Amino acid sequence: MDNRPIGIFDSGVGGLTVVKQVISLMPQEDIIYFGDTARLPYGTKPQETVRIFSEEITRFLIHHDVKTILIACNTATAASLPYLNEKYDVPIFGVIASGAEEAQKTTKNHRVGLIATEGTVRSGAYVRKLAQLDERITVTAQGCPLFVSMAEAGWVDNPAVEEAAKIYLKEIQAAGVDTLILGCTHFPLLAKPISRVMGDGVTLVDPALATAQKAKDYLKAHNALAVRETTGRRTFYVSAMTDDFSHLCQIALGQSYKPEVADLSQFSQK
Amino acid sequence: MDNRPIGIFDSGVGGLTVVKQVISLMPQEDIIYFGDTARLPYGTKPQETVRIFSEEITRFLIHHDVKTILIACNTATAASLPYLNEKYDVPIFGVIASGAEEAQKTTKNHRVGLIATEGTVRSGAYVRKLAQLDERITVTAQGCPLFVSMAEAGWVDNPAVEEAAKIYLKEIQAAGVDTLILGCTHFPLLAKPISRVMGDGVTLVDPALATAQKAKDYLKAHNALAVRETTGRRTFYVSAMTDDFSHLCQIALGQSYKPEVADLSQFSQK
Repeated sequence: MDNRPIGIFDSGVGGLTVVKQVISLMPQEDIIYFGDTARLPYGTKPQETVRIFSEEITRFLIHHDVKTILIACNTATAASLPYLNEKYDVPIFGVIASGAEEAQKTTKNHRVGLIATEGTVRSGAYVRKLAQLDERITVTAQGCPLFVSMAEAGWVDNPAVEEAAKIYLKEIQAAGVDTLILGCTHFPLLAKPISRVMGDGVTLVDPALATAQKAKDYLKAHNALAVRETTGRRTFYVSAMTDDFSHLCQIALGQSYKPEVADLSQFSQK
Repeated sequence: MDNRPIGIFDSGVGGLTVVKQVISLMPQEDIIYFGDTARLPYGTKPQETVRIFSEEITRFLIHHDVKTILIACNTATAASLPYLNEKYDVPIFGVIASGAEEAQKTTKNHRVGLIATEGTVRSGAYVRKLAQLDERITVTAQGCPLFVSMAEAGWVDNPAVEEAAKIYLKEIQAAGVDTLILGCTHFPLLAKPISRVMGDGVTLVDPALATAQKAKDYLKAHNALAVRETTGRRTFYVSAMTDDFSHLCQIALGQSYKPEVADLSQFSQK
């Protein structure tokens, strides 16, 4: 057994949906969450910038003695996961491998759509992973930066969101996909209008769900699950205080937590 | 005369429109521009966070021996201008006073609308300034975070933008304003759909235009305009490299500049 905490990080508060999954599958685990609210969003920024941010947070979490790290953000996973796994000993999981595996299990016609941030699309990480899993799969990918902003603004279903969905999903519809990966932590919030535009024949895949299961399988196989009588302690850090945090905690976790502001400058590699 | 450069900063690349105005009014001035592309956007972040960012950039510009600073970002002006002007000797100008003065000159019915980031609206800076100028003026303000993302995504006029405009502008229309302040550097890009929704009777005010004139008047009155035979040198810094920069330079300034990446950590006050 290993009672050290699980580290989870995200560009902001979207990763709380991954926290929710971890709590539900492994209630006894301590969790340390970091949301980079001072520098969000990641999705429109260069890969190298996001890699630098992700490494600072990884070093912060390692400093807090985590036994594993879950990157709850697709953009950060795409920009930094192979690099971080090579450089640091702690096992690190991202959302992309789980999302791709789920999509591979779901698709029947081998045509998969991907909507994500521009950073995630540009990285090609989902395309590479899906090709590895089944070379017959073709991927039609679309960066949807405005979906991120809409979800953050609480616009989850109104005429502007629907018009944006029509614009963004045009090519993916034309490709005849039967599976659509929601390749950004925010997008499950917009599932309704996305589903309406895509139609009933298309299954939406949320990578966050599978990621927590993957981490649990790993910890179990390595005899590293926490063993304690009580539920674990959950600690939340942000890089800038934000009103959204408690609100989204309430929605995602059913209770409010007050985050602490953490200064990352000592973990910089510059 | 004073041949030291003018410093101009913004959360990103939107401030290049202010650079354009400065170049056109004072072609002989050296300019140092800083765009905080690693940490943008400012508009959705807490006032205290934006104040800290703005102070770091101010110290960076002072280190580069500027004779004056123009804050090209409404959110940063709202969060930091009085604080910075109190703390530092170099004269600092923001876009809000100029925008408010312009609106006061324009309005006939004393009803003014303001669209801006949430940070700018929350600060109340425009409302205070307009009340100071003419107490009969009432302001109807609306935070429009998605307009920022739409302009950044290059969505300046499509059905989603128009639907968003209809949602955001509803209350301002109902208030019967005759003048609408575009209180965010990005919003002039969306002038067409905004104008269509507001109708012909409403004049749009772009605060960037008046700010450069204000700085010129100040420098002239203080005998501090640059005197040289050639046009000034323009130097551009960003906190993270971005593809958008050269593209927007081309649009705003008619030529491409390559920015340098600057590290602000030595200017931190922490």
